[in-house]
Amino acid sequence: MDRILVTYRVRADAASIAARAQAIAVEQSVEMPVAAIEDRFVLDRIVGRVEDIADMGEGCFDVRIALAVSTTGNEPGQMMNMLFGNASILDGVELRDATFPASMAQGFGGPHLGIAGLRAMAGAEGRALTCSALKPQGLPPEGLAQVAGALARGRIDVIKDDHGLADQAYSPFARRVEACARAIRDGAAASGARTRYAPSVTGNLDAMRRQIRCAVDNGVDMVLIAPMIVGLPAFHTVVREFPALGFMAHPAMAGAARIAPSLLIGKLFRMLGADATVFPNHGGRFGYSPETCRALADAARGPDHGLRSCVPVPAGGMTPERVPEMLTFYGADVMLLVGGALLSARERLAQETARFTASVAEHAHG
Amino acid sequence: MDRILVTYRVRADAASIAARAQAIAVEQSVEMPVAAIEDRFVLDRIVGRVEDIADMGEGCFDVRIALAVSTTGNEPGQMMNMLFGNASILDGVELRDATFPASMAQGFGGPHLGIAGLRAMAGAEGRALTCSALKPQGLPPEGLAQVAGALARGRIDVIKDDHGLADQAYSPFARRVEACARAIRDGAAASGARTRYAPSVTGNLDAMRRQIRCAVDNGVDMVLIAPMIVGLPAFHTVVREFPALGFMAHPAMAGAARIAPSLLIGKLFRMLGADATVFPNHGGRFGYSPETCRALADAARGPDHGLRSCVPVPAGGMTPERVPEMLTFYGADVMLLVGGALLSARERLAQETARFTASVAEHAHG
Repeated sequence: MDRILVTYRVRADAASIAARAQAIAVEQSVEMPVAAIEDRFVLDRIVGRVEDIADMGEGCFDVRIALAVSTTGNEPGQMMNMLFGNASILDGVELRDATFPASMAQGFGGPHLGIAGLRAMAGAEGRALTCSALKPQGLPPEGLAQVAGALARGRIDVIKDDHGLADQAYSPFARRVEACARAIRDGAAASGARTRYAPSVTGNLDAMRRQIRCAVDNGVDMVLIAPMIVGLPAFHTVVREFPALGFMAHPAMAGAARIAPSLLIGKLFRMLGADATVFPNHGGRFGYSPETCRALADAARGPDHGLRSCVPVPAGGMTPERVPEMLTFYGADVMLLVGGALLSARERLAQETARFTASVAEHAHG
Repeated sequence: MDRILVTYRVRADAASIAARAQAIAVEQSVEMPVAAIEDRFVLDRIVGRVEDIADMGEGCFDVRIALAVSTTGNEPGQMMNMLFGNASILDGVELRDATFPASMAQGFGGPHLGIAGLRAMAGAEGRALTCSALKPQGLPPEGLAQVAGALARGRIDVIKDDHGLADQAYSPFARRVEACARAIRDGAAASGARTRYAPSVTGNLDAMRRQIRCAVDNGVDMVLIAPMIVGLPAFHTVVREFPALGFMAHPAMAGAARIAPSLLIGKLFRMLGADATVFPNHGGRFGYSPETCRALADAARGPDHGLRSCVPVPAGGMTPERVPEMLTFYGADVMLLVGGALLSARERLAQETARFTASVAEHAHG
């Protein structure tokens, strides 16, 4: 198959939907009057084709359009450009879903490690993974390292930088990573757990490569990246260049609100190589519904052309008290991220963290 | 001033808006319970501050929050992360505007050429600039070169690649740019105009640098880039690395619909170095209102901490017939982009283009 099947949800009336669907098919392919095209190859193989229009009620239609794979040039940015570049500016059009041919999904490659690889790294066989976040930004490296050490003593599987930690003057990347990696190593040695550190990697591709090499030099084997902040091309490039690392995707700037979260944060981030994908769980600070979260988790870890699975990381105001409910909702193929709620324990951080990680371990064994 | 003043439009009721505003200030800075923070520097200099809440009616409030410049690390991606990273996922929150301190705007640097520089390059003193687009994608380099030659013979100032042209198998970047640059040189020599070519640059930072060097080797001095496709860090990096080139920004994927177009496509693209910014004009295929277009043009070319101005490029289904109206609306500091409407002329492409460019030139002189 040489076409991507893309579903757009379009607000329109029944009389105009056929014309609007055709207009989107043109906008997302040749972007000019089709009548002015003479070239046979362009008409047959490049112009977008409306495959289906379904009335979803309440003035909305799901329009399925087949776009030529060849227009993407097998490049992540151009793929997004073809899926939603100009249509993102059209009134009343949302990008709902996309079905890629196997060759395209396998060409981008998906996660190198996937859920199984992350579990093996953390020694978390048979249970859900746990995660917390280094905060607040503004602390010097030593302050963050102190938090990191306590979390590690509490046997957390993954300690990620807050996504706001970048390469700021008050806590430069290299000094922060050195201090936190050491504190986590020491904490893990004390607790006997295999806590991993995922520092936040930012900047342009040159800076990202430098930061990743610096992290690796400090014994780090996971990183956190916000693909919509650094750009999809940069994200995919470092995933391919560092196949031994675990990649966590952060949803910052992914709330475009006109791309379904299951597609962008679930399916696309996975296809481009995220081993873990952070998203706002229902009932927290953000407005995702349980159905949205379920669909996102399914897209991240369900079957997808043989790609490794990506572990969903529900987050955004979660508490240790929600562990049983979340494990019932997501099952064991999940990474539970509790940040601020643990940090509020202050001097009891290591103990509260240990209570959190124990409750996850016990749930799996009970 | 060490703060960015950011305006969010928030849907809320009067009873809850103060708490919501405070929650956004925390979300976009330390992202954890403030009560759990002891560090004085973080509390005083990093935590976001609610400066103002204005009732805009109809259940909406404009919330002004002061964010610390230092959290951005003077890096474009991290700046966007601080402006709207997590807030982009919050329900009912739009990013409306941001006021930067002069040091920050000047640090990013803005356009190298600006309107005056582009005018000088094209020899368009005292009048509006004209532009058309190479389409459709799917044509081989020779087919696109033929279109380019006709447009150049019609005395167009700037011929940009369609933003869908990337580095596809049927028209690889290097062969396309060589063929089109030559056709445009020949066409311009015949017409006596100083037509510039702006090829579409895509991919990761390595690929973008390769493509730009290839373009320069072919005598090209402008490029087209979609900042939200390649990522803001990559866009800003090549702007700084190639100060002699003119940079046109394309709005693909910028229709997040929760960031005001005047801020993203006008102010931010300019601050990061766009000499020209393409956007959908009112009354075309897209839904921007005249007010939105006016605000975007003002942000692109109004006074802004001494940054050079960025020329607004209204587009998206424009026709030569609209030239007088558009010039009245935007004045002479504008680049008029007519694409598909000219291409529909087929074998009369050069003549119709000449009619378009003449009407722009006459308007200015009449």
